[in-house]
Amino acid sequence: MSAYEQFQNHIAELSDILNAISILKWDARTQMPPGGAETRGYQLATLSRLAQEHFISDKTARLLDAVEAEIAGEDEDSYRVRAVRQTRQYFEIIRRIPLDLVSEKAALEPVSEHVWAKAKVENDFASFAPYLQQQLDLAKRQAEAIGYQEHPFDALVFEYEPSMTAAKLRVLFDQLKAGLLPLLQRIVAHDRPLERDLWVHEYPLDKQRAFALEIAQAFGYDLNRGRLDVAPHPFEISFTRQDVRITTRYSLNYLPMALFGTLHETGHALYEQGVDPALTRTALTIDFLGKYPVGGTSYGAHESQSRLWENQIGRSREFWEVHFPRLREYFPEQLARADADLMYRAVNRVRPSLIRVEADEVTYNLHIMLRVEIEMGLLDGSLKVNELPEVWNAKMQEYLGVTPDTDTDGVLQDIHWSGGGFGSFPGYTVGNVMSAQFLEAARRDVPGLNDALARGEYAPLLHWLQQNIYRHGRAYSASELLQRCTGSDLQVGPYLAYLEAKFSDLYQLGAYAH
Amino acid sequence: MSAYEQFQNHIAELSDILNAISILKWDARTQMPPGGAETRGYQLATLSRLAQEHFISDKTARLLDAVEAEIAGEDEDSYRVRAVRQTRQYFEIIRRIPLDLVSEKAALEPVSEHVWAKAKVENDFASFAPYLQQQLDLAKRQAEAIGYQEHPFDALVFEYEPSMTAAKLRVLFDQLKAGLLPLLQRIVAHDRPLERDLWVHEYPLDKQRAFALEIAQAFGYDLNRGRLDVAPHPFEISFTRQDVRITTRYSLNYLPMALFGTLHETGHALYEQGVDPALTRTALTIDFLGKYPVGGTSYGAHESQSRLWENQIGRSREFWEVHFPRLREYFPEQLARADADLMYRAVNRVRPSLIRVEADEVTYNLHIMLRVEIEMGLLDGSLKVNELPEVWNAKMQEYLGVTPDTDTDGVLQDIHWSGGGFGSFPGYTVGNVMSAQFLEAARRDVPGLNDALARGEYAPLLHWLQQNIYRHGRAYSASELLQRCTGSDLQVGPYLAYLEAKFSDLYQLGAYAH
Repeated sequence: MSAYEQFQNHIAELSDILNAISILKWDARTQMPPGGAETRGYQLATLSRLAQEHFISDKTARLLDAVEAEIAGEDEDSYRVRAVRQTRQYFEIIRRIPLDLVSEKAALEPVSEHVWAKAKVENDFASFAPYLQQQLDLAKRQAEAIGYQEHPFDALVFEYEPSMTAAKLRVLFDQLKAGLLPLLQRIVAHDRPLERDLWVHEYPLDKQRAFALEIAQAFGYDLNRGRLDVAPHPFEISFTRQDVRITTRYSLNYLPMALFGTLHETGHALYEQGVDPALTRTALTIDFLGKYPVGGTSYGAHESQSRLWENQIGRSREFWEVHFPRLREYFPEQLARADADLMYRAVNRVRPSLIRVEADEVTYNLHIMLRVEIEMGLLDGSLKVNELPEVWNAKMQEYLGVTPDTDTDGVLQDIHWSGGGFGSFPGYTVGNVMSAQFLEAARRDVPGLNDALARGEYAPLLHWLQQNIYRHGRAYSASELLQRCTGSDLQVGPYLAYLEAKFSDLYQLGAYAH
Repeated sequence: MSAYEQFQNHIAELSDILNAISILKWDARTQMPPGGAETRGYQLATLSRLAQEHFISDKTARLLDAVEAEIAGEDEDSYRVRAVRQTRQYFEIIRRIPLDLVSEKAALEPVSEHVWAKAKVENDFASFAPYLQQQLDLAKRQAEAIGYQEHPFDALVFEYEPSMTAAKLRVLFDQLKAGLLPLLQRIVAHDRPLERDLWVHEYPLDKQRAFALEIAQAFGYDLNRGRLDVAPHPFEISFTRQDVRITTRYSLNYLPMALFGTLHETGHALYEQGVDPALTRTALTIDFLGKYPVGGTSYGAHESQSRLWENQIGRSREFWEVHFPRLREYFPEQLARADADLMYRAVNRVRPSLIRVEADEVTYNLHIMLRVEIEMGLLDGSLKVNELPEVWNAKMQEYLGVTPDTDTDGVLQDIHWSGGGFGSFPGYTVGNVMSAQFLEAARRDVPGLNDALARGEYAPLLHWLQQNIYRHGRAYSASELLQRCTGSDLQVGPYLAYLEAKFSDLYQLGAYAH
């Protein structure tokens, strides 16, 4: 066996263990009876330890040395070379993280999440503050262990968005704010109630599911390699490209919840299902730092696809002109007095609100910036944990013009910090920005794409995304993908232009160049 | 840490890996999209290898040496001592099995099963024969590696029914035949059609499911630690006592399929859910040779519980007198002209037939004996693979008075041999025999048990079974359990008396002592 084959077999085993962990997690969230939680915890802990031992082993070190010698001189852009290079990069980084830090983080997480969940219900930030402080201290130690040039945030965001740094994000956010804040003000000034509230009716869940799945399949989601389940916090998860599962949640009245939840996760799933079969069980479908198997190259790149399919396609006027008649076949009475235009406006209503996961396309990124700015402040010491509620509320007022009555609807709303997930939020906004760049490039590259979309034909778009993004798995960074597809790095222009055009039309804001 | 704690932690990790394997198998059979099969195979292979390496390691050897020194002199009946002793016993046995034999078996199994499935569909025994010969050769090598005193079958049945040998089984079968064959002849002579065929109606599946689950819970199945799914080949599987899942299959007309399938698997599940919490993740809930986590002490002991709850309870006159009115609430039209007595007779119809899994209580064991006799003949060389169809058909005629028209309905009907599972069939019959001994002992020990059962109260029976059987996990062998509960080893008397009484009444065969 060649050194590369031995290396690849070793990584394939790691991939198998990580996939098994993901299957156990999916089961725990969607199928497991409640009594199984404790022993499932043991199973996950044991498999996680095995995966860690497998990767941070002398065997990995030996195989890396051998394969690096063997592939020296090969094309730097080949999957082989990139697989070895990325494995080496993460091997060195992960070896820098002290084992006691890993175990302290693992031990704190369930406790901290439990305290957070209780504090959220009871609107009691003070009870959560000491655990948040511990998570912050661990995050700082992790940042020191990994290392960074300018800001400790750089070391943490690296796990989720390797192309990003605090400095780059500050520039990005300033550019976004300069576009978004005035747009939002104009929208709010022009807002008027819709002529009819569509969400007072009841939409039986089985029909909601059937329609959502029909659209997911029209987008290209392959049920031979996927399935749709219910989960209180919807997610997509893949166990190689051959088994890519999505979840959604349902509201009897509020039809958009299950539909757009499904389309969002479908976007993630199309990315995973589109990975080149040759990358199955290789280093280019593993997130080494996150310790899970995934085809998408970063949080932002992944989110760019969920946002693209959910928002830019699923919330477009063309989409509803094509698919509204079909939706009305499912719900003839409920939608008797509605039409495509009303539906389009109903699913795109902009309203400054308190809760991130319910936010519209215009306000969503403001929620993200607020969080990222707070994280940076906590990490560089310019902000203290006990100042968080006040700072949160002030920023909400500044960006969105609303102030939460409770910390439950404010600083306690998201689970991320309770699990120590500092650095993960930028991916959402980076994804939004990237999605517009990618779609712009696709429209440029694919003749007749707009006409196809207007006919509800998604294969040409999917094909372009597969060829340019999905198939490469994690072989190229988000930055590299952007460069290859669009000729430039992250740019807010296309995204702001997309929002300006869409909402100028929706809210009759007047000229595009307003 | 004490040597015992170190030993126990090591075994707990093995248990976690084996449980993860079982979860992946459950998922593959009930949830996985078809496209996931190939990569799931890799995941299972990798985890199986990890489990094997974990167990057959120098670390296990060291820990065993240390813990044996530490527990020397402790109570031989304690769980601790039994856990260590069984681990040592299987450690030595499994180390005798050459690794190339293990990998040859693993490689042959999927191919052989695939060829069998095709041969069954095409009624082509000749195409399967070479693979059966290979499985037989591997089984013989396995028997030689494990070792045996009298008959190679002894080494193979040890995996499934450690208390059994070929010689003991021959005695058991002769005793059973002496009772069953005359009983069957009398039943066939007295058989007359039922006055009404209940299985011409349609029974909506959701109601079938609801009723079956209602009964499973009445028996004591805890849905907080379990769930019911659909599977083409129903099974029970446990990932510790905290997560014990069952499956069934449905026929729109033939109500008994889903109901008794559920009750059968419920019996298995009650065993698993009843294991002492202290045995969770210990050697006393692992089948080392079978390499899976299980609380029941042998195939026969396990089957004794599925048979007890399915047949002796679920197919009893008392059961239907209590539960028929409830079933009619689910199916008022379908069962308008039926009553408890008709239902009782309809679910106990005895008919010599070709297919084991559809056989009634009287003929079932004859199907098993035929298979076990053939296995013994193949292993000791008195029977050749190419003689199987002829021998099968001759034995069917001898025992049941029927001859299959095709090998599909004959020698090709079961999957077991294609996977090399020689030695597993006796468990079914041993379980039937044991079930009657256990129930007889429970009736003797528990005051008012018959009255409770006649009222549909199952807690007293469940409590006795938990205390005497379930809670011990694999700490005692089937033989030891029988000795402790009934004062004697396996005895056909109670089982034959049960069948004689039940079917004499059902078929009006005259006096009990006929």
